[in-house]
Amino acid sequence: MSQDIIAGRNPVREALRAGRTLNKIMVLSGARTAPIREIMDMARSNRVPVQRVDKNHLDKITAGASHQGVVALAAAMNYVDLDHIIDGIKDSPPFLVLLDGIHDPHNLGAIIRTADAAGVHGVVIPQRRAVPLTSTVAKASAGAIEHLPVARVTNLAQTIKKLQDRGFWVVGADMDGQQTHWESPLNGPIALVIGGEGKGLGRLIKERCDLVVKLPMFGNINSLNASVAAALLIYEVVRQRTQGNSHA
Amino acid sequence: MSQDIIAGRNPVREALRAGRTLNKIMVLSGARTAPIREIMDMARSNRVPVQRVDKNHLDKITAGASHQGVVALAAAMNYVDLDHIIDGIKDSPPFLVLLDGIHDPHNLGAIIRTADAAGVHGVVIPQRRAVPLTSTVAKASAGAIEHLPVARVTNLAQTIKKLQDRGFWVVGADMDGQQTHWESPLNGPIALVIGGEGKGLGRLIKERCDLVVKLPMFGNINSLNASVAAALLIYEVVRQRTQGNSHA
Repeated sequence: MSQDIIAGRNPVREALRAGRTLNKIMVLSGARTAPIREIMDMARSNRVPVQRVDKNHLDKITAGASHQGVVALAAAMNYVDLDHIIDGIKDSPPFLVLLDGIHDPHNLGAIIRTADAAGVHGVVIPQRRAVPLTSTVAKASAGAIEHLPVARVTNLAQTIKKLQDRGFWVVGADMDGQQTHWESPLNGPIALVIGGEGKGLGRLIKERCDLVVKLPMFGNINSLNASVAAALLIYEVVRQRTQGNSHA
Repeated sequence: MSQDIIAGRNPVREALRAGRTLNKIMVLSGARTAPIREIMDMARSNRVPVQRVDKNHLDKITAGASHQGVVALAAAMNYVDLDHIIDGIKDSPPFLVLLDGIHDPHNLGAIIRTADAAGVHGVVIPQRRAVPLTSTVAKASAGAIEHLPVARVTNLAQTIKKLQDRGFWVVGADMDGQQTHWESPLNGPIALVIGGEGKGLGRLIKERCDLVVKLPMFGNINSLNASVAAALLIYEVVRQRTQGNSHA
Protein backbone atom coordinates (compact mmCIF):
# COMPACT_ATOMS: atom_id res chain seq x y z
CA MET A 1 0.00 0.00 0.00
CA SER A 2 1.26 3.44 -0.90
CA GLN A 3 1.71 5.68 2.11
CA ASP A 4 2.47 9.34 2.77
CA ILE A 5 5.16 10.12 5.35
CA ILE A 6 4.28 13.10 7.55
CA ALA A 7 7.28 14.20 9.64
CA GLY A 8 7.50 16.74 12.45
CA ARG A 9 5.34 17.94 15.31
CA ASN A 10 3.28 20.58 13.49
CA PRO A 11 2.57 18.58 10.32
CA VAL A 12 1.52 15.52 12.37
CA ARG A 13 -0.66 17.64 14.65
CA GLU A 14 -2.30 19.32 11.62
CA ALA A 15 -2.93 15.98 9.96
CA LEU A 16 -4.65 14.81 13.15
CA ARG A 17 -6.67 18.04 13.37
CA ALA A 18 -7.71 17.83 9.71
CA GLY A 19 -9.08 14.35 10.32
CA ARG A 20 -6.73 12.81 7.78
CA THR A 21 -6.67 9.03 7.81
CA LEU A 22 -3.46 8.01 9.57
CA ASN A 23 -2.34 4.41 9.64
CA LYS A 24 0.17 4.80 12.44
CA ILE A 25 2.15 7.40 14.39
CA MET A 26 5.76 6.65 15.38
CA VAL A 27 7.25 8.48 18.34
CA LEU A 28 10.88 8.53 19.51
CA SER A 29 11.45 6.17 22.46
CA GLY A 30 11.59 8.10 25.70
CA ALA A 31 10.27 11.41 24.29
CA ARG A 32 7.93 12.92 26.89
CA THR A 33 7.79 16.63 26.00
CA ALA A 34 4.48 18.49 26.08
CA PRO A 35 4.05 18.62 22.26
CA ILE A 36 4.71 14.88 21.99
CA ARG A 37 2.24 14.14 24.78
CA GLU A 38 -0.37 16.36 23.07
CA ILE A 39 0.08 14.45 19.80
CA MET A 40 -0.25 11.14 21.63
CA ASP A 41 -3.48 12.34 23.27
CA MET A 42 -4.88 13.40 19.89
CA ALA A 43 -3.84 10.08 18.38
CA ARG A 44 -5.71 8.25 21.14
CA SER A 45 -8.87 10.36 20.53
CA ASN A 46 -8.62 9.68 16.79
CA ARG A 47 -7.89 5.97 17.42
CA VAL A 48 -4.56 6.08 15.62
CA PRO A 49 -2.08 3.46 16.87
CA VAL A 50 1.11 4.91 18.38
CA GLN A 51 4.42 3.03 18.24
CA ARG A 52 7.64 3.87 20.12
CA VAL A 53 10.71 3.51 17.89
CA ASP A 54 14.39 4.46 18.11
CA LYS A 55 16.03 7.43 16.41
CA ASN A 56 17.63 5.35 13.64
CA HIS A 57 14.21 4.09 12.61
CA LEU A 58 12.76 7.63 12.31
CA ASP A 59 15.84 8.91 10.46
CA LYS A 60 15.58 6.08 7.98
CA ILE A 61 11.85 6.49 7.30
CA THR A 62 12.16 10.23 6.73
CA ALA A 63 15.34 9.80 4.69
CA GLY A 64 17.17 12.19 6.97
CA ALA A 65 14.55 14.97 6.96
CA SER A 66 13.76 16.76 10.25
CA HIS A 67 11.18 14.76 12.20
CA GLN A 68 11.41 16.22 15.75
CA GLY A 69 10.79 12.75 17.14
CA VAL A 70 7.43 12.10 15.50
CA VAL A 71 6.35 10.67 12.15
CA ALA A 72 2.90 9.68 10.89
CA LEU A 73 2.09 7.26 8.11
CA ALA A 74 -0.99 8.38 6.17
CA ALA A 75 -3.07 6.68 3.52
CA ALA A 76 -1.87 8.20 0.28
CA MET A 77 -4.49 10.38 -1.40
CA ASN A 78 -4.35 9.92 -5.11
CA TYR A 79 -3.35 13.31 -6.36
CA VAL A 80 -3.01 13.39 -10.12
CA ASP A 81 -0.38 15.25 -12.10
CA LEU A 82 -1.85 18.40 -13.72
CA ASP A 83 -0.28 17.70 -17.12
CA HIS A 84 -1.77 14.23 -16.97
CA ILE A 85 -5.23 15.72 -16.38
CA ILE A 86 -4.91 18.19 -19.28
CA ASP A 87 -3.48 15.63 -21.69
CA GLY A 88 -6.36 13.28 -20.90
CA ILE A 89 -9.13 15.74 -21.93
CA LYS A 90 -10.64 14.70 -25.25
CA ASP A 91 -14.35 15.43 -25.23
CA SER A 92 -14.77 19.19 -24.83
CA PRO A 93 -12.83 22.41 -24.20
CA PRO A 94 -10.71 21.89 -21.06
CA PHE A 95 -12.38 23.08 -17.87
CA LEU A 96 -10.41 23.28 -14.61
CA VAL A 97 -11.15 24.72 -11.18
CA LEU A 98 -8.25 26.18 -9.13
CA LEU A 99 -8.79 26.77 -5.42
CA ASP A 100 -6.75 29.46 -3.68
CA GLY A 101 -6.71 28.58 -0.01
CA ILE A 102 -9.87 26.66 0.90
CA HIS A 103 -9.51 25.75 4.58
CA ASP A 104 -12.83 24.06 5.35
CA PRO A 105 -12.85 20.38 4.32
CA HIS A 106 -16.67 20.50 3.91
CA ASN A 107 -16.30 23.32 1.39
CA LEU A 108 -13.56 21.46 -0.51
CA GLY A 109 -15.71 18.32 -0.60
CA ALA A 110 -18.78 20.25 -1.75
CA ILE A 111 -16.77 21.97 -4.51
CA ILE A 112 -15.41 18.62 -5.74
CA ARG A 113 -18.96 17.26 -5.77
CA THR A 114 -20.28 20.22 -7.79
CA ALA A 115 -17.31 20.14 -10.16
CA ASP A 116 -17.91 16.47 -10.87
CA ALA A 117 -21.64 17.02 -11.51
CA ALA A 118 -20.89 19.92 -13.87
CA GLY A 119 -18.38 17.96 -15.94
CA VAL A 120 -15.25 19.80 -14.80
CA HIS A 121 -12.10 17.90 -15.83
CA GLY A 122 -10.03 18.47 -12.70
CA VAL A 123 -9.52 20.49 -9.54
CA VAL A 124 -6.20 22.07 -8.54
CA ILE A 125 -5.31 22.84 -4.92
CA PRO A 126 -2.13 24.37 -3.49
CA GLN A 127 0.20 22.37 -1.28
CA ARG A 128 0.36 25.02 1.45
CA ARG A 129 -2.21 27.12 3.33
CA ALA A 130 -5.12 24.92 2.20
CA VAL A 131 -6.86 21.79 3.38
CA PRO A 132 -5.50 18.64 1.68
CA LEU A 133 -7.63 15.67 0.66
CA THR A 134 -8.85 14.06 3.88
CA SER A 135 -11.52 11.58 4.81
CA THR A 136 -13.78 14.52 5.76
CA VAL A 137 -13.31 15.99 2.28
CA ALA A 138 -14.05 12.59 0.73
CA LYS A 139 -17.26 12.28 2.75
CA ALA A 140 -18.42 15.83 1.90
CA SER A 141 -17.79 15.13 -1.78
CA ALA A 142 -20.42 12.36 -1.66
CA GLY A 143 -17.97 10.05 -3.41
CA ALA A 144 -17.10 12.46 -6.24
CA ILE A 145 -13.48 12.48 -5.03
CA GLU A 146 -13.15 8.94 -6.38
CA HIS A 147 -13.94 10.17 -9.89
CA LEU A 148 -12.70 13.72 -10.29
CA PRO A 149 -8.91 14.08 -10.52
CA VAL A 150 -7.35 16.51 -8.03
CA ALA A 151 -3.86 17.93 -8.62
CA ARG A 152 -1.77 19.49 -5.89
CA VAL A 153 0.72 22.17 -6.93
CA THR A 154 3.47 23.97 -5.04
CA ASN A 155 2.85 27.39 -6.59
CA LEU A 156 -0.59 28.39 -7.81
CA ALA A 157 0.63 31.59 -9.52
CA GLN A 158 3.12 29.57 -11.60
CA THR A 159 0.38 27.09 -12.43
CA ILE A 160 -1.79 29.93 -13.75
CA LYS A 161 1.07 31.09 -15.98
CA LYS A 162 1.56 27.57 -17.25
CA LEU A 163 -2.14 27.17 -18.03
CA GLN A 164 -2.15 30.50 -19.89
CA ASP A 165 0.81 29.28 -21.95
CA ARG A 166 -1.23 26.22 -22.84
CA GLY A 167 -4.10 28.41 -24.06
CA PHE A 168 -6.32 28.55 -20.99
CA TRP A 169 -8.42 31.64 -20.20
CA VAL A 170 -7.96 32.10 -16.44
CA VAL A 171 -10.92 33.72 -14.68
CA GLY A 172 -10.84 34.65 -11.00
CA ALA A 173 -13.79 35.49 -8.79
CA ASP A 174 -13.58 38.38 -6.36
CA MET A 175 -15.81 40.97 -4.69
CA ASP A 176 -14.11 43.77 -6.64
CA GLY A 177 -14.33 42.11 -10.07
CA GLN A 178 -14.92 44.45 -13.00
CA GLN A 179 -18.10 42.78 -14.25
CA THR A 180 -20.51 40.05 -13.26
CA HIS A 181 -19.92 36.45 -14.30
CA TRP A 182 -23.03 36.69 -16.49
CA GLU A 183 -21.55 39.57 -18.50
CA SER A 184 -18.21 37.82 -19.02
CA PRO A 185 -17.20 35.51 -21.84
CA LEU A 186 -16.46 32.11 -20.29
CA ASN A 187 -15.98 30.01 -23.42
CA GLY A 188 -13.06 27.95 -24.67
CA PRO A 189 -10.43 26.31 -22.48
CA ILE A 190 -11.05 27.80 -19.06
CA ALA A 191 -9.63 27.71 -15.54
CA LEU A 192 -11.75 29.26 -12.79
CA VAL A 193 -9.90 30.50 -9.70
CA ILE A 194 -11.92 30.54 -6.46
CA GLY A 195 -10.67 32.22 -3.29
CA GLY A 196 -10.78 30.87 0.23
CA GLU A 197 -13.40 31.50 2.91
CA GLY A 198 -13.47 35.10 4.05
CA LYS A 199 -10.28 36.25 2.35
CA GLY A 200 -11.01 35.84 -1.34
CA LEU A 201 -8.19 35.68 -3.87
CA GLY A 202 -4.60 36.54 -2.99
CA ARG A 203 -3.26 39.73 -4.60
CA LEU A 204 -0.66 37.96 -6.76
CA ILE A 205 -3.19 35.40 -7.93
CA LYS A 206 -5.68 38.12 -8.82
CA GLU A 207 -3.06 39.98 -10.87
CA ARG A 208 -2.26 36.86 -12.84
CA CYS A 209 -5.87 36.23 -13.88
CA ASP A 210 -6.95 37.20 -17.41
CA LEU A 211 -10.23 38.44 -15.99
CA VAL A 212 -11.69 38.92 -12.53
CA VAL A 213 -15.46 38.62 -12.26
CA LYS A 214 -17.83 39.33 -9.39
CA LEU A 215 -21.00 37.63 -8.25
CA PRO A 216 -23.85 40.14 -7.95
CA MET A 217 -25.14 40.68 -4.41
CA PHE A 218 -28.18 42.56 -3.17
CA GLY A 219 -28.49 41.63 0.48
CA ASN A 220 -27.40 42.61 3.96
CA ILE A 221 -24.52 40.20 4.46
CA ASN A 222 -23.23 40.21 0.90
CA SER A 223 -20.85 37.33 0.97
CA LEU A 224 -21.39 33.79 -0.20
CA ASN A 225 -20.16 30.49 1.12
CA ALA A 226 -17.06 29.46 -0.90
CA SER A 227 -18.74 26.30 -2.21
CA VAL A 228 -21.80 28.30 -3.29
CA ALA A 229 -19.65 30.91 -5.07
CA ALA A 230 -17.75 28.10 -6.81
CA ALA A 231 -21.01 26.43 -7.90
CA LEU A 232 -22.42 29.65 -9.38
CA LEU A 233 -19.26 30.20 -11.45
CA ILE A 234 -18.87 26.59 -12.51
CA TYR A 235 -22.47 26.40 -13.70
CA GLU A 236 -22.23 29.73 -15.53
CA VAL A 237 -19.44 28.22 -17.64
CA VAL A 238 -21.70 25.26 -18.37
CA ARG A 239 -24.62 27.57 -19.21
CA GLN A 240 -22.57 29.57 -21.69
CA ARG A 241 -21.22 26.38 -23.26
CA THR A 242 -24.62 24.74 -23.67
CA GLN A 243 -26.97 27.73 -24.03
CA GLY A 244 -24.64 30.20 -25.72
CA ASN A 245 -24.08 33.78 -24.64
CA SER A 246 -23.94 37.20 -26.18
CA HIS A 247 -20.20 37.64 -25.64
CA ALA A 248 -18.80 34.80 -27.70
CA MET B 1 -37.64 37.69 26.98
CA SER B 2 -39.89 35.78 24.65
CA GLN B 3 -39.51 32.03 25.02
CA ASP B 4 -40.73 28.95 23.19
CA ILE B 5 -42.22 26.12 25.29
CA ILE B 6 -41.17 22.68 24.08
CA ALA B 7 -43.20 19.94 25.79
CA GLY B 8 -42.81 16.16 25.73
CA ARG B 9 -39.97 13.66 25.58
CA ASN B 10 -39.47 13.50 21.80
CA PRO B 11 -39.71 17.23 21.10
CA VAL B 12 -37.28 18.04 23.92
CA ARG B 13 -34.87 15.31 22.79
CA GLU B 14 -35.04 16.59 19.19
CA ALA B 15 -34.43 20.17 20.30
CA LEU B 16 -31.33 18.96 22.17
CA ARG B 17 -30.19 16.94 19.15
CA ALA B 18 -30.72 19.85 16.78
CA GLY B 19 -28.49 22.01 18.96
CA ARG B 20 -31.29 24.50 19.60
CA THR B 21 -30.49 27.07 22.27
CA LEU B 22 -32.39 25.98 25.39
CA ASN B 23 -32.56 28.23 28.43
CA LYS B 24 -33.72 25.51 30.85
CA ILE B 25 -35.22 22.05 31.02
CA MET B 26 -37.84 21.25 33.67
CA VAL B 27 -38.33 17.66 34.73
CA LEU B 28 -41.08 16.20 36.94
CA SER B 29 -39.83 15.63 40.50
CA GLY B 30 -39.03 11.98 41.09
CA ALA B 31 -39.17 10.95 37.40
CA ARG B 32 -36.37 8.43 36.78
CA THR B 33 -37.42 6.56 33.63
CA ALA B 34 -34.86 5.76 30.94
CA PRO B 35 -36.10 8.45 28.48
CA ILE B 36 -35.98 11.12 31.23
CA ARG B 37 -32.49 10.03 32.25
CA GLU B 38 -31.37 10.15 28.61
CA ILE B 39 -32.70 13.72 28.27
CA MET B 40 -30.93 14.73 31.49
CA ASP B 41 -27.65 13.27 30.17
CA MET B 42 -28.05 15.18 26.88
CA ALA B 43 -28.87 18.35 28.80
CA ARG B 44 -25.67 17.95 30.81
CA SER B 45 -23.59 17.46 27.63
CA ASN B 46 -25.21 20.54 26.09
CA ARG B 47 -24.79 22.51 29.34
CA VAL B 48 -28.51 23.17 29.68
CA PRO B 49 -29.62 23.68 33.31
CA VAL B 50 -32.12 21.08 34.56
CA GLN B 51 -34.68 21.93 37.24
CA ARG B 52 -36.94 19.49 39.13
CA VAL B 53 -40.50 20.81 39.43
CA ASP B 54 -43.88 19.41 40.50
CA LYS B 55 -46.67 18.32 38.16
CA ASN B 56 -48.77 21.45 38.75
CA HIS B 57 -45.91 23.60 37.54
CA LEU B 58 -45.51 21.62 34.30
CA ASP B 59 -49.28 21.55 33.70
CA LYS B 60 -49.45 25.31 34.14
CA ILE B 61 -46.51 26.10 31.83
CA THR B 62 -47.84 23.91 29.05
CA ALA B 63 -51.41 25.13 29.56
CA GLY B 64 -52.60 21.57 29.97
CA ALA B 65 -50.89 20.13 26.87
CA SER B 66 -49.25 16.69 27.17
CA HIS B 67 -45.72 17.09 28.55
CA GLN B 68 -44.77 13.53 29.67
CA GLY B 69 -42.89 15.00 32.62
CA VAL B 70 -40.46 17.17 30.66
CA VAL B 71 -40.56 20.70 29.28
CA ALA B 72 -37.83 22.85 27.76
CA LEU B 73 -37.73 26.63 27.50
CA ALA B 74 -36.06 27.74 24.28
CA ALA B 75 -34.96 31.11 23.03
CA ALA B 76 -37.72 32.17 20.67
CA MET B 77 -36.64 32.24 17.05
CA ASN B 78 -38.29 35.10 15.30
CA TYR B 79 -40.39 33.40 12.69
CA VAL B 80 -42.35 35.88 10.62
CA ASP B 81 -45.89 35.46 9.32
CA LEU B 82 -45.90 34.66 5.58
CA ASP B 83 -48.63 37.21 4.78
CA HIS B 84 -46.61 39.79 6.62
CA ILE B 85 -43.57 39.01 4.44
CA ILE B 86 -45.58 39.24 1.21
CA ASP B 87 -47.40 42.44 2.20
CA GLY B 88 -44.08 44.08 3.02
CA ILE B 89 -42.57 43.60 -0.46
CA LYS B 90 -42.46 46.91 -2.31
CA ASP B 91 -39.32 47.08 -4.43
CA SER B 92 -39.49 44.28 -6.98
CA PRO B 93 -41.55 41.25 -7.99
CA PRO B 94 -41.96 39.03 -4.91
CA PHE B 95 -39.33 36.29 -4.63
CA LEU B 96 -39.69 33.53 -2.02
CA VAL B 97 -37.82 30.28 -1.38
CA LEU B 98 -39.74 27.30 0.04
CA LEU B 99 -37.78 24.42 1.55
CA ASP B 100 -39.32 20.96 1.56
CA GLY B 101 -37.59 19.02 4.31
CA ILE B 102 -34.05 20.33 4.77
CA HIS B 103 -32.61 18.33 7.69
CA ASP B 104 -29.04 19.61 7.87
CA PRO B 105 -28.75 22.89 9.80
CA HIS B 106 -25.60 23.81 7.82
CA ASN B 107 -27.55 23.54 4.59
CA LEU B 108 -30.44 25.61 5.98
CA GLY B 109 -28.00 28.28 7.16
CA ALA B 110 -26.16 28.32 3.82
CA ILE B 111 -29.46 28.66 1.93
CA ILE B 112 -30.55 31.58 4.13
CA ARG B 113 -27.17 33.22 3.51
CA THR B 114 -27.45 32.82 -0.27
CA ALA B 115 -31.09 33.94 -0.30
CA ASP B 116 -30.16 37.11 1.57
CA ALA B 117 -27.26 37.87 -0.79
CA ALA B 118 -29.49 37.36 -3.83
CA GLY B 119 -32.23 39.67 -2.56
CA VAL B 120 -34.85 36.99 -1.84
CA HIS B 121 -37.70 38.43 0.26
CA GLY B 122 -38.27 35.47 2.56
CA VAL B 123 -37.73 31.78 3.20
CA VAL B 124 -40.52 29.35 4.13
CA ILE B 125 -39.87 26.14 6.06
CA PRO B 126 -42.35 23.49 7.20
CA GLN B 127 -43.04 22.91 10.89
CA ARG B 128 -42.52 19.15 10.68
CA ARG B 129 -39.83 16.88 9.21
CA ALA B 130 -37.34 19.72 8.82
CA VAL B 131 -34.70 21.41 10.90
CA PRO B 132 -36.02 24.52 12.70
CA LEU B 133 -34.03 27.69 13.22
CA THR B 134 -31.25 26.82 15.66
CA SER B 135 -28.02 28.41 16.75
CA THR B 136 -26.18 26.14 14.26
CA VAL B 137 -28.39 27.45 11.46
CA ALA B 138 -27.77 31.02 12.60
CA LYS B 139 -24.01 30.46 12.57
CA ALA B 140 -24.02 28.80 9.13
CA SER B 141 -26.07 31.73 7.78
CA ALA B 142 -23.15 34.06 8.63
CA GLY B 143 -25.63 36.41 10.31
CA ALA B 144 -28.09 36.54 7.37
CA ILE B 145 -30.74 34.99 9.64
CA GLU B 146 -30.95 38.31 11.46
CA HIS B 147 -32.01 40.05 8.24
CA LEU B 148 -33.96 37.63 6.08
CA PRO B 149 -37.46 36.80 7.35
CA VAL B 150 -38.22 33.09 7.78
CA ALA B 151 -41.82 31.84 7.96
CA ARG B 152 -42.76 28.45 9.36
CA VAL B 153 -45.91 26.84 7.99
CA THR B 154 -47.87 23.75 9.03
CA ASN B 155 -48.65 22.58 5.49
CA LEU B 156 -46.34 23.39 2.61
CA ALA B 157 -48.77 22.10 -0.05
CA GLN B 158 -51.48 24.47 1.22
CA THR B 159 -48.97 27.30 1.28
CA ILE B 160 -48.17 26.64 -2.39
CA LYS B 161 -51.87 26.82 -3.24
CA LYS B 162 -52.19 30.06 -1.32
CA LEU B 163 -49.19 31.59 -3.09
CA GLN B 164 -50.63 30.57 -6.47
CA ASP B 165 -53.90 32.28 -5.53
CA ARG B 166 -51.90 35.41 -4.81
CA GLY B 167 -50.33 35.33 -8.28
CA PHE B 168 -47.05 33.49 -7.57
CA TRP B 169 -45.47 31.21 -10.16
CA VAL B 170 -44.33 28.19 -8.13
CA VAL B 171 -41.27 26.41 -9.52
CA GLY B 172 -39.92 23.20 -8.01
CA ALA B 173 -36.52 21.65 -8.59
CA ASP B 174 -36.20 17.93 -9.13
CA MET B 175 -34.00 15.38 -10.93
CA ASP B 176 -36.90 14.48 -13.27
CA GLY B 177 -37.85 18.03 -14.18
CA GLN B 178 -39.07 18.58 -17.76
CA GLN B 179 -36.49 21.20 -18.69
CA THR B 180 -33.40 22.88 -17.26
CA HIS B 181 -33.70 25.99 -15.10
CA TRP B 182 -31.95 27.92 -17.88
CA GLU B 183 -34.68 27.04 -20.38
CA SER B 184 -37.50 27.97 -18.02
CA PRO B 185 -39.20 31.35 -17.60
CA LEU B 186 -38.51 32.48 -14.04
CA ASN B 187 -39.88 36.02 -14.18
CA GLY B 188 -42.61 37.77 -12.19
CA PRO B 189 -43.67 36.88 -8.65
CA ILE B 190 -41.92 33.59 -7.98
CA ALA B 191 -41.63 30.95 -5.29
CA LEU B 192 -38.86 28.36 -5.70
CA VAL B 193 -39.37 25.01 -3.98
CA ILE B 194 -36.19 23.13 -3.04
CA GLY B 195 -36.25 19.53 -1.83
CA GLY B 196 -34.34 18.05 1.08
CA GLU B 197 -31.02 16.25 1.05
CA GLY B 198 -31.09 12.96 -0.82
CA LYS B 199 -34.87 12.73 -1.22
CA GLY B 200 -35.77 15.71 -3.36
CA LEU B 201 -39.33 17.03 -3.49
CA GLY B 202 -42.26 15.12 -2.01
CA ARG B 203 -44.76 13.78 -4.56
CA LEU B 204 -47.64 16.00 -3.47
CA ILE B 205 -45.43 19.09 -3.44
CA LYS B 206 -44.16 18.29 -6.92
CA GLU B 207 -47.71 17.90 -8.27
CA ARG B 208 -48.68 21.29 -6.87
CA CYS B 209 -45.83 23.14 -8.61
CA ASP B 210 -46.61 25.12 -11.78
CA LEU B 211 -43.34 23.91 -13.25
CA VAL B 212 -40.64 21.46 -12.23
CA VAL B 213 -37.15 22.21 -13.50
CA LYS B 214 -33.96 20.19 -13.39
CA LEU B 215 -30.35 21.17 -12.92
CA PRO B 216 -28.20 19.75 -15.72
CA MET B 217 -25.62 17.17 -14.62
CA PHE B 218 -22.77 15.59 -16.54
CA GLY B 219 -20.73 13.74 -13.93
CA ASN B 220 -20.35 10.47 -12.12
CA ILE B 221 -22.20 11.23 -8.90
CA ASN B 222 -24.89 13.46 -10.39
CA SER B 223 -26.39 14.96 -7.32
CA LEU B 224 -25.76 18.34 -5.78
CA ASN B 225 -25.65 19.47 -2.21
CA ALA B 226 -29.05 20.99 -1.31
CA SER B 227 -27.55 24.41 -0.61
CA VAL B 228 -25.70 24.35 -3.94
CA ALA B 229 -28.87 23.38 -5.84
CA ALA B 230 -30.77 26.16 -4.08
CA ALA B 231 -28.05 28.70 -4.94
CA LEU B 232 -28.07 27.77 -8.64
CA LEU B 233 -31.85 28.22 -8.85
CA ILE B 234 -31.97 31.39 -6.79
CA TYR B 235 -29.28 33.04 -8.90
CA GLU B 236 -30.92 31.95 -12.16
CA VAL B 237 -34.01 33.93 -11.12
CA VAL B 238 -31.77 36.93 -10.45
CA ARG B 239 -30.01 36.46 -13.81
CA GLN B 240 -33.27 36.39 -15.74
CA ARG B 241 -34.53 39.45 -13.83
CA THR B 242 -31.39 41.49 -14.40
CA GLN B 243 -30.04 40.15 -17.71
CA GLY B 244 -33.29 39.16 -19.37
CA ASN B 245 -34.00 35.82 -21.00
CA SER B 246 -35.44 34.49 -24.20
CA HIS B 247 -38.59 33.10 -22.56
CA ALA B 248 -40.13 36.27 -21.13
